[in-house]
Amino acid sequence: MIRLQAYDLILKKRNGYELSTAEIEHLITSYTLGLITDYQMAAFCMAVYFQGMNARETADLAVAMANSGTKYDLSGVGGTVIDKHSTGGVGDTTTLVVAPLVASCGVPVAKMSGRGLGHTGGTIDKLESIPGFRCNLEQEEFIKQVNAINISIISQSETVAPADKRLYALRDVTATVDSIPLIASSIMSKKIAAGADGIVLDVKTGRGAFMQRRDQAVELAKAMVAIGKELKKPTIALITDMEQPLGYTIGNALEIREAVQTLAGEGAWDLTELCLQIGAEMLVLAGRSQTHEEAYQVLQEKLKSKAGLLKLRELIRSQVGNPDVVDDPSLLPQAHYLTEVRSERSGYIKSIDALMIGRLVMQLGAGRRTKDSAIDLSVGIELKQKAGAYVQQNQVLAVIHSNRPISAESGALLGCFQFSQSPPRFRPLVWEKITPEDV
Amino acid sequence: MIRLQAYDLILKKRNGYELSTAEIEHLITSYTLGLITDYQMAAFCMAVYFQGMNARETADLAVAMANSGTKYDLSGVGGTVIDKHSTGGVGDTTTLVVAPLVASCGVPVAKMSGRGLGHTGGTIDKLESIPGFRCNLEQEEFIKQVNAINISIISQSETVAPADKRLYALRDVTATVDSIPLIASSIMSKKIAAGADGIVLDVKTGRGAFMQRRDQAVELAKAMVAIGKELKKPTIALITDMEQPLGYTIGNALEIREAVQTLAGEGAWDLTELCLQIGAEMLVLAGRSQTHEEAYQVLQEKLKSKAGLLKLRELIRSQVGNPDVVDDPSLLPQAHYLTEVRSERSGYIKSIDALMIGRLVMQLGAGRRTKDSAIDLSVGIELKQKAGAYVQQNQVLAVIHSNRPISAESGALLGCFQFSQSPPRFRPLVWEKITPEDV
Repeated sequence: MIRLQAYDLILKKRNGYELSTAEIEHLITSYTLGLITDYQMAAFCMAVYFQGMNARETADLAVAMANSGTKYDLSGVGGTVIDKHSTGGVGDTTTLVVAPLVASCGVPVAKMSGRGLGHTGGTIDKLESIPGFRCNLEQEEFIKQVNAINISIISQSETVAPADKRLYALRDVTATVDSIPLIASSIMSKKIAAGADGIVLDVKTGRGAFMQRRDQAVELAKAMVAIGKELKKPTIALITDMEQPLGYTIGNALEIREAVQTLAGEGAWDLTELCLQIGAEMLVLAGRSQTHEEAYQVLQEKLKSKAGLLKLRELIRSQVGNPDVVDDPSLLPQAHYLTEVRSERSGYIKSIDALMIGRLVMQLGAGRRTKDSAIDLSVGIELKQKAGAYVQQNQVLAVIHSNRPISAESGALLGCFQFSQSPPRFRPLVWEKITPEDV
Repeated sequence: MIRLQAYDLILKKRNGYELSTAEIEHLITSYTLGLITDYQMAAFCMAVYFQGMNARETADLAVAMANSGTKYDLSGVGGTVIDKHSTGGVGDTTTLVVAPLVASCGVPVAKMSGRGLGHTGGTIDKLESIPGFRCNLEQEEFIKQVNAINISIISQSETVAPADKRLYALRDVTATVDSIPLIASSIMSKKIAAGADGIVLDVKTGRGAFMQRRDQAVELAKAMVAIGKELKKPTIALITDMEQPLGYTIGNALEIREAVQTLAGEGAWDLTELCLQIGAEMLVLAGRSQTHEEAYQVLQEKLKSKAGLLKLRELIRSQVGNPDVVDDPSLLPQAHYLTEVRSERSGYIKSIDALMIGRLVMQLGAGRRTKDSAIDLSVGIELKQKAGAYVQQNQVLAVIHSNRPISAESGALLGCFQFSQSPPRFRPLVWEKITPEDV
């Protein structure tokens, strides 16, 4: 009976028809219970790859996967909780800046984050480079902390959206990862389970992003915003640039140091600007500010007053980390070798290849090859120059932080820099914004 | 390593690229060895459903599946061996008429046949209704018999094309059965393993056929003829009508009786004509006749002289069956109840629904629901009239042979007959012929 139903659902999608809410629920529930086999689900995913899913189906899939596991109830938090999600970047320290900054404005931040995979980093790995920092709070503790100090960042529980975990692992080995409705419902299932009232999505595009082409990033953003719209959960997306790494550093402890600098108002232009843009969207969604401009100014003030930095310190202390890292970054894990990479020519830096740099940092030991790899929190790359800068021959471009002597990596890192004789064209940081009205 | 390769092959096909011979061999060999999982293969089949395969890929797939098991070596048979395959019909007794008829012309027939499944019958089930008949000869015995009396019909060994069996079972539960390249390679893998020098394909179209639409039947025929062409194995296909049942009877023992009548020159027009057409193609491919017309005449002579009937008797005796069934059909299994179904009106019979009749006969006990179902060889339906005939009210249309009293079946059978007041349009028996020049 169940077998026949799975067959019918595959056939229906294969032939281009829309599945009902009940059918999608049945599919995911049965799969979670092991009543639908992996081979039927693989055939279904490939059918979705070719036939797609509309917004309603995609939302239903996200909800069904969220319902397969633990759902956080944030009703105990006083105030509107706005979540923030990035599709993954290189040197993307945004959450560690935005979360304290927004919390310092009186808007509660109850955030679940993930670990790095592949060439992109993850917030939880970065936080764990702070000595003592605890990421695995129970739901009760988590909500209590948010109510006490307006902020908590914890690692996503293994019990969140287990259907998504199983489906993702299956897609990973059956060439069905890059389907927009499947990616969108996967991301949104975890956001739905996390229980926030609204969501700001940072969809990266460019060399270092999973969606390298802008049209793909826009398509994914629209699919996710449409899910939010279907579920009447305010959701907006920014399409942001991930052609070169964000900010100056790539690596876990290095990015904590950079988050501190940025919250002190001394950060790189691009990282600071992105944090202000995303933070402003969060303040507006939370109802803290009426307009984007107003929210942006409030956040600028918080940078100037270092209120966000104070909030980061509170967050660290509350989660049993050593808060002194904020004043003394040498308390963070340090790499044994620092190797300068110098320019072999003079000229404008045209581009810095974020994907290659992400991979290099992974090779240094900062990234995971598989879900269970141990990682080295101290290693990474520190850029001294960014795209658009004019450099002289022999000027330092970057510093490699490693725990073994460097050989081929210097040349590889140098190869990530492209030069031109005239100033390169400026790439916008925020390409566009997708709102529920756009989908 | 293997995992990665399977992934790459799925991705390549999903993205619309052609797979190489080595890649297809690798895929099937690895699948047979259990190194590629069912879920990867299911995703691959769905990708093929959407992206297709060209003639070379389809031929490579057929060969790879043939190579996964026993391949018959017919080089010990004196003369050119031509195989014959039908895509499955209702009342399709063709093999039991054509095989002895062609053998009686001096052309060796070394034939492996299958059992019925679903609403269609199978030659082996029909032969087993002859008391004592043995279908499971060893290869050596099989060839010895062909060399002695020019004919043997055996059941296809379980060890033929095991990769096809496994793949078919997977396709059956993942909605990937109806893909032309997958159907064509599945059929041809078994024909290749059977070792004949040439193949005549009878591709059915109409209500009772798996390919109900003529364009689908032509597409499948072209895909199979193209495989033959790729492999330099002479192959032709006839697209033939399966709108109403072929001949007068549907059911295992009933069809043996009808084969005997047809070989005696007293068969139904359509069954006789189809056997002459297919037989003529076999004689030409075997080099026994120069032209189709010449071959057709030779076969008509054999009907007249009853040489084919004599050959059927020899076949039965040689495979330990009771040859007296040829003279006395009452030696075949008999059903206990005969129920006449009479017309409720007068008029022309416009059509007789072959699919519904096939299903009715299956319900009577003659067909298998699953591969291992036991079947009742004696039951079936005997048509007294065929499409195009003018009948009076209360005239007998058909007789149901059953082993339990009949109730709803009479009405259901009556519902298979459609009537019209004017003579219906004649449907050709052979719609068209596909030769290697056509693909």
